[in-house]
Amino acid sequence: MLYLIGLGLRGDDIPYSGIKALKKCSKVYCEVYTNLPGIEKKKLESILGKKINFLERKDVEEKDFIVEEAEKENIGFLVSGDPLAATTHIDLVLRAKKRNIDVKIIHASSIFSAVSETGLQLYKFGKTVSIVYPEEKFFPKSFYDTIISNKERGLHTLLLLDIKAENKRYMNPNEAFEILETVDKNKIIKKVIVVSRLGRDDQKIIYGDINELKSCSYGDPPHCIILPGELHFLEEEFLNYFKVKK
Amino acid sequence: MLYLIGLGLRGDDIPYSGIKALKKCSKVYCEVYTNLPGIEKKKLESILGKKINFLERKDVEEKDFIVEEAEKENIGFLVSGDPLAATTHIDLVLRAKKRNIDVKIIHASSIFSAVSETGLQLYKFGKTVSIVYPEEKFFPKSFYDTIISNKERGLHTLLLLDIKAENKRYMNPNEAFEILETVDKNKIIKKVIVVSRLGRDDQKIIYGDINELKSCSYGDPPHCIILPGELHFLEEEFLNYFKVKK
Repeated sequence: MLYLIGLGLRGDDIPYSGIKALKKCSKVYCEVYTNLPGIEKKKLESILGKKINFLERKDVEEKDFIVEEAEKENIGFLVSGDPLAATTHIDLVLRAKKRNIDVKIIHASSIFSAVSETGLQLYKFGKTVSIVYPEEKFFPKSFYDTIISNKERGLHTLLLLDIKAENKRYMNPNEAFEILETVDKNKIIKKVIVVSRLGRDDQKIIYGDINELKSCSYGDPPHCIILPGELHFLEEEFLNYFKVKK
Repeated sequence: MLYLIGLGLRGDDIPYSGIKALKKCSKVYCEVYTNLPGIEKKKLESILGKKINFLERKDVEEKDFIVEEAEKENIGFLVSGDPLAATTHIDLVLRAKKRNIDVKIIHASSIFSAVSETGLQLYKFGKTVSIVYPEEKFFPKSFYDTIISNKERGLHTLLLLDIKAENKRYMNPNEAFEILETVDKNKIIKKVIVVSRLGRDDQKIIYGDINELKSCSYGDPPHCIILPGELHFLEEEFLNYFKVKK
């Protein structure tokens, strides 16, 4: 049996049900590349009362030892956020299913619902987009079509910022603004919300014009950006608590 | 200080960080009307080591005692799912903010990210819709425009089904299919995924043609429905594990 257990947003947001499941596991792995750890190994081990084997992305993507072991015993696999929010883990589950291994997912908090902390209503979000680091000969712009299409329908857009954990590169909001401004020739993007370190004790939510927000510093990742669509008056009222100080 | 703490999908999915926060609270309330409890009071009290005061929806929406008490002491307020996924709790936070009360949200698992368990990629979901029980002189159909608009863009649609907890009415998938078929004259909706009791030990995910799924029985709530958009081959492969048995 393979238990895929979410650590949630900040690492110690692991659900009680997940801690219980881990007690049944003979081995525990952890992989946190899609997010920042924000977890000290020792602290997590003391919460869980288990030794944890930390893995790198390639151990999960390119190797099969996790599913091989889960064929014989209960294996716990800890993942930041909600386990299947990232595609890699869907692939892992698929490999387990192909071997007829039972998989139990224990869901945890995720940026996809936690952005509700801005006061924006989740059912008014359109398709999510990712902004990736442009490469020398490749500057992807398709995310902009999604932003425009959401905007035309009055919907909010969640922008996930690129993470290149292997190079310790985490796109910060100012880098994202630069990319946005390169593609947004007609300056359609005006209001912006920056959400930093959501769920952590030092989280920050800042709302304002993109020009005002460009001069802010945002500290450590992870960050994401929301482009608000049409605002209900309650959403507007809530957002005002996060207005950038001039 | 007001701690708004998510219980997650199944009630004992409360995050470890939430259990820690509760230790600082002199009083704990719980309100579960937007979801089914799935929590026995006694079990939860023994997990948390605290007495819990269960509330009804109107206690939260129409009365101010929670924020009044949070002005003077640490109050814990437990909510099913992720606390701000439902609008009522946004309103509660807003009332606290107006009184300058600090609010700490502790996020937990939510249907909005847990639907990833179907293998569908979260960033390919369009706007979420709710299907409500039609009333004698009011048959809301606007949700159908959203379904069509998502479909045209190749996006998946999450359909939340109506809950009238005060009357113990929880819309089941077959009731939802009937409403869908009333508005979908041209039979545009074909493939459907029904997700029942997600995250719980008796969860069910069933995928197939709407006509096949109409004859299934789905057991106890909560349920939701997903209308898949264009499927990536990995999504298709994953969904095949949930195909309805003929």
